[in-house]
Amino acid sequence: MGETSKKTVAVVGLGSMGWGAAVSLLRAGYAVRGADIRDAVLDRLEEAGGAPCRTAADAARGADMVLIFVVNAEQTEAVVFGPGGVLETLAPGSLIVACATVPPAFAEDLGARLAARDMLLIDGPVSGGAAKAEAGEMVIMASGAPAAFEAADGVFEAISAKVYRLGDDVGSGSRMKMINQLLAGVHIAAACEAVTLGLRAGIDPDRLYEVITECAGSSWMFENRVPHILEGDYTPKSAVDIFVKDLGIVLETGRALKFPLPIASIAHQLFTMASASGYAREDDAAVAKVYAGTGGVTLPGED
Amino acid sequence: MGETSKKTVAVVGLGSMGWGAAVSLLRAGYAVRGADIRDAVLDRLEEAGGAPCRTAADAARGADMVLIFVVNAEQTEAVVFGPGGVLETLAPGSLIVACATVPPAFAEDLGARLAARDMLLIDGPVSGGAAKAEAGEMVIMASGAPAAFEAADGVFEAISAKVYRLGDDVGSGSRMKMINQLLAGVHIAAACEAVTLGLRAGIDPDRLYEVITECAGSSWMFENRVPHILEGDYTPKSAVDIFVKDLGIVLETGRALKFPLPIASIAHQLFTMASASGYAREDDAAVAKVYAGTGGVTLPGED
Repeated sequence: MGETSKKTVAVVGLGSMGWGAAVSLLRAGYAVRGADIRDAVLDRLEEAGGAPCRTAADAARGADMVLIFVVNAEQTEAVVFGPGGVLETLAPGSLIVACATVPPAFAEDLGARLAARDMLLIDGPVSGGAAKAEAGEMVIMASGAPAAFEAADGVFEAISAKVYRLGDDVGSGSRMKMINQLLAGVHIAAACEAVTLGLRAGIDPDRLYEVITECAGSSWMFENRVPHILEGDYTPKSAVDIFVKDLGIVLETGRALKFPLPIASIAHQLFTMASASGYAREDDAAVAKVYAGTGGVTLPGED
Repeated sequence: MGETSKKTVAVVGLGSMGWGAAVSLLRAGYAVRGADIRDAVLDRLEEAGGAPCRTAADAARGADMVLIFVVNAEQTEAVVFGPGGVLETLAPGSLIVACATVPPAFAEDLGARLAARDMLLIDGPVSGGAAKAEAGEMVIMASGAPAAFEAADGVFEAISAKVYRLGDDVGSGSRMKMINQLLAGVHIAAACEAVTLGLRAGIDPDRLYEVITECAGSSWMFENRVPHILEGDYTPKSAVDIFVKDLGIVLETGRALKFPLPIASIAHQLFTMASASGYAREDDAAVAKVYAGTGGVTLPGED
């Protein structure tokens, strides 16, 4: 990278999406300070050339901007405002990008509170999964002030295939992400319902996958999650409880807007059943186990 | 086609899929005898080089095989066994291909009854929509005896991009189609729920379509049907009542198998509401009107 002086970027939360952002930034020549509570991922970060940090405050020290890749609103709140949080060290006028899926109302409130502290905020939830993130090809649904996007100069290009600028307000990014999660959650649950009905009806599940992915019944989630069921592998790429949370955000927003959401409600119930049945931290395709258990079906990989 | 003596194929029902099959067969050099109750489509068939017929019996006279593209089990029953039906004229030992979406149990029964009349049956529901059908690129989910597939020699290749042979029995084709329709129906209803929630939350619907189709929330049906909502065009490509019927088949099969189908049940309710609200013959994207009407949303194209 030689003469070019690239920004120093703090990445708080090195789960699959945060990790992908961190390594993509390192590849593009940025200095990366990464914070996580897990030793193993901090060791991997150091090997990859980044600076491992124990707290968000530590990561934000001397950074030009902060990307927050924690899992929800509560964690976002904690890593910004809590003890050891970003605001303890981040220089005034810096940019924070909030990438977790959070209620749009939380994002709006966060924007107002950070503006009062002279910080810029981009409401920037992401989509795409671990593989795309690691390749620097996630999708970002972003909104915020023009000055915030100027401050982000180059960083989004390094970590994403596509950045949608959805408005100058804070909130439009999270609203779009909420719509995506409604569909994604329903499609996962529907895929589980369809595959287990197919098993109950005597259809070979590998054949079912082969045919449906070529037909009008297919979805991104069907293509992506059904192989986990076919392989009997519920190692969490994304856990059941993520959709308990994300469809919860959808329903909370629907209640606030007085808008009926019958399909999202039922899908949320299914993720809740899966979570309460002991599959909370398994891959979200474990919703299939709820159907199998209540429908008299043996899943691939079960006895 | 000169020296080659290609089969004469009867096509009963010239809706979008049947019409696509008929013109694809004509392009491939087959003689086509097409039956429908509508004059306009028979005129178009004649212009395209086919023989227009008033009844299924008329179409089947002298034909080597019959493709049935009516909309449901009742019509399939009528055009095979009823007055003016195929069995009045079709030569013993000939092949019938049943392409409507029907209950798997009906397909099994049909196979047994036709075997008793010395007829071959392929249980062959289709997917893909009007444009693919007209291009000879529909997908066929087919099952039946090896002798039946031998008798179909060449015809499936002329009308489809892909033929899945799902078993030597009659019923496996319809079982796979049922799974496809479960997913397709749920995805349409979920797309309507998501787009109208987006409108209620103040998201620009064109932007919503642009973003979601690039994200993990996308589905074949979202991509295909949401443009109808955006354009406010509910001219039926496939009508609301088709999914009242098809999800009805899914639920009927679930009841027979004692298998729980919470998501398909809710989706069926939404198509039923749309049908009962006066949108029965509108495009199935009119489920969005149920959400708009009950959720305080104005759809594109409405005042």
